[in-house]
Amino acid sequence: MEPDALVPALAQRLGPEAVITDEARLAPYLEERRGLFHGRCRAVIRPASTEEVAESVRLCAAAGISIVPQGGNTGHCGGAAPDAGGGQVILSLERLDRIRAVDPVGHTLVAEAGCILADVQRAAAESDRLFPLSYAAEGQCRIGGNLATNAGGMNVLRYGNARDLVLGVEVVLADGRIWDGLRALRKDNSGYDLKDLFIGAEGTLGIITAAVLRLFPRPRHHATALVGLDGPETTLELLALLRAETGDALSAFEIMARRPVEFALRHGAGCVEPFEQQWPWYVLLDVTSSRRRDDLPGLLEAALARSAGIARDYRVAAEATDRERLWALRNAIPGAQKHEGASIKHDISVPLPAIPEFLARATAAVERRLPGVRPCPFGHVGDGNIHFNLSQPPGMDADEFLGRWDEFNRLVHDIVAELDGSFAAEHGVGQLKPAEVARLKSPVEQDLMRWIKRALDPEDRLNPGKVVPPGD
Amino acid sequence: MEPDALVPALAQRLGPEAVITDEARLAPYLEERRGLFHGRCRAVIRPASTEEVAESVRLCAAAGISIVPQGGNTGHCGGAAPDAGGGQVILSLERLDRIRAVDPVGHTLVAEAGCILADVQRAAAESDRLFPLSYAAEGQCRIGGNLATNAGGMNVLRYGNARDLVLGVEVVLADGRIWDGLRALRKDNSGYDLKDLFIGAEGTLGIITAAVLRLFPRPRHHATALVGLDGPETTLELLALLRAETGDALSAFEIMARRPVEFALRHGAGCVEPFEQQWPWYVLLDVTSSRRRDDLPGLLEAALARSAGIARDYRVAAEATDRERLWALRNAIPGAQKHEGASIKHDISVPLPAIPEFLARATAAVERRLPGVRPCPFGHVGDGNIHFNLSQPPGMDADEFLGRWDEFNRLVHDIVAELDGSFAAEHGVGQLKPAEVARLKSPVEQDLMRWIKRALDPEDRLNPGKVVPPGD
Repeated sequence: MEPDALVPALAQRLGPEAVITDEARLAPYLEERRGLFHGRCRAVIRPASTEEVAESVRLCAAAGISIVPQGGNTGHCGGAAPDAGGGQVILSLERLDRIRAVDPVGHTLVAEAGCILADVQRAAAESDRLFPLSYAAEGQCRIGGNLATNAGGMNVLRYGNARDLVLGVEVVLADGRIWDGLRALRKDNSGYDLKDLFIGAEGTLGIITAAVLRLFPRPRHHATALVGLDGPETTLELLALLRAETGDALSAFEIMARRPVEFALRHGAGCVEPFEQQWPWYVLLDVTSSRRRDDLPGLLEAALARSAGIARDYRVAAEATDRERLWALRNAIPGAQKHEGASIKHDISVPLPAIPEFLARATAAVERRLPGVRPCPFGHVGDGNIHFNLSQPPGMDADEFLGRWDEFNRLVHDIVAELDGSFAAEHGVGQLKPAEVARLKSPVEQDLMRWIKRALDPEDRLNPGKVVPPGD
Repeated sequence: MEPDALVPALAQRLGPEAVITDEARLAPYLEERRGLFHGRCRAVIRPASTEEVAESVRLCAAAGISIVPQGGNTGHCGGAAPDAGGGQVILSLERLDRIRAVDPVGHTLVAEAGCILADVQRAAAESDRLFPLSYAAEGQCRIGGNLATNAGGMNVLRYGNARDLVLGVEVVLADGRIWDGLRALRKDNSGYDLKDLFIGAEGTLGIITAAVLRLFPRPRHHATALVGLDGPETTLELLALLRAETGDALSAFEIMARRPVEFALRHGAGCVEPFEQQWPWYVLLDVTSSRRRDDLPGLLEAALARSAGIARDYRVAAEATDRERLWALRNAIPGAQKHEGASIKHDISVPLPAIPEFLARATAAVERRLPGVRPCPFGHVGDGNIHFNLSQPPGMDADEFLGRWDEFNRLVHDIVAELDGSFAAEHGVGQLKPAEVARLKSPVEQDLMRWIKRALDPEDRLNPGKVVPPGD
């Protein structure tokens, strides 16, 4: 098929409402919401079923046109943005938005890729179950994108990343065939683990169209604590102590340096100085329990009392409004940072014991490179995942600062690499970081990635240019 | 290199003690312990380091000789047994047996592939941590084999399969290069999920030489309950109720039909009728907690009391000796079955809600096919994993019965397939079940497996004939 015959063929097969070519209607699909990535495309295809996704892939293959799969378009690394050439098509999963089944006994739910995450959470809750994946974007992001990027979020410490919440997937392959791997099995060793290849591959190996997700008992009890600490070293001691003392009820364990807390106090609505004394570091943590009767505040109080010398001051909240007040501080940080000028961001992880060394070395390195730069480390320290964000020096030109994005990324990522960490912890690679893959991953690992890409998508039709760096 | 030059070359490079060719010393490597599989080989190679494994693979590749990786040789499906031709070499990982590191703060442990599972558990315990993988063979099996087969065991309900306990792996590839994927990261989305390809691949895609394993707080409290029930339906209701009531403290949930319990009572040392009344089904369950203070017996009593009408009778044990007495019944089943003649075994899983239908249909089907056959279903029902074992009809010739192994497998596996289950839940495929892979998996899924095998091992040198069925 001639490339120009593709759009008419798609419109004929899927119906005219399934194909968008109008400039104004294309716009929201072409730019990632954070604004860093935008491109052009031949059309947006909106198939309404797995079979229509497969048909779309077959038609694109026949026309030699490559495909950019897209969910809620809330990513941070350009994984769902087309290139600048205008020759690609975007395949939006937004019309595959049915919850196919909820099984409260088996603790599973089958969702199509286009389901909004919040709708998946709601469907689970209506059956008195918990689907624990949760982030700020949960009202816009779609579960297919969450799986394609193996998204993390707040509850990874207890429930794992998106990958850990999936029992099976349905995938349209590059050749347009459908792999029905929608199994609801906790144990299956009847062949290679194929599902985990597609999860986290950002649509470069196949298009996830549906998944069997794991559900959990709904927590009946919650407690939150805010803790003031001297440094990252004692933060790790506190984490180990609380994991044991609370019987792994710990579901969030977030670190914040004093500076991002100050930003939140300065700009965040309803944020107040939490303790009489200021502390250089803070931890915000949640424990949850589905036991019928439980005393989580008592459990936390006892554990924190036992941590004397580690937790320098603390505050435990059980009531929802009090817990929300503590969380307000953490939730205000990303917004507050915008009031302090431009930011250069790093989504990194290191092995837990390396966190203190990473923070010390990375802070010293960026301050040496640019005096006045203001590191604002915070994040999911329970998972080793620090958002090492840099606010610009006061008074510096924002564009000049942002122009040094790659330079600071390299500086920080080199330290991460020396500590056996990851330069892409929870936001993926997309088109932002393939060069870092090429620079920092071993040649052996890059070969493995290329071999697999070539085996599953020999024509390089699925999201080309993303994740896998160019190579032989 | 000529094939016959391989053994001298290996002996020269690795030292003579690393290469076994003596018939008597070869014997234990050639036969799987259960006795179903045995073969012949050119030599057993015993490298002592990852670099020596890599060197061995390179030399074998140069000579065109294929390799059968082997751990503790405790598998059930012939995955570690060589073929009958005598041309292969067995590569034993038994000399890679160092615990490289234990990190109690980060809750990780780095073990080489040849470590005995019990030694890994012990190293974790010495740092006041738990490595939860556990089975009957733990004193002989080696962690590399546990990972290569993604082994399950008793604690999957709470801690997951072997796969879920791994953060990173080190692998020697078919081309003799070493992939250092030994990361201790809880969040890493910097590329494809390569580690999960090697886990569960039974040595057909690469040879795992070491792994970063996840540790957990050590449980301080344990309680066990034995419950009598009317049927599998109420068993599932009890499971959902207990998951919620105990706050996911449930770490084992084992079902036993009355017949295997009767076999245990008849042949097992120290097994006594547990309740005044006999029940058609029993559940044995464990709850554990690492909280400093906890009342697990009280938690269980309250939950079971609330389950009136589901739990027909029950008994809760807190003291170690009492708990062991309850477990004696379950542990006696496999041995007791041997006293009742020959057994045909099935290692299957189905989605949890399908368990009652599976048990009813499979029991009816095998009894119709062979009147007098005695199904003995028991297993890890919390994971949907039933060991649907058939004891021969009393008085029938054992060999005649065992001659019908494939016939009964097909009969049972067809029902499993109709219920979207797996014919290989926790013991893998090996050389026992590739024909079932070919018969029961979709052509698309078989193609995916073949594409990956060909991409990573294009010469088919790593454990050929295992897992992946022959095909284009």
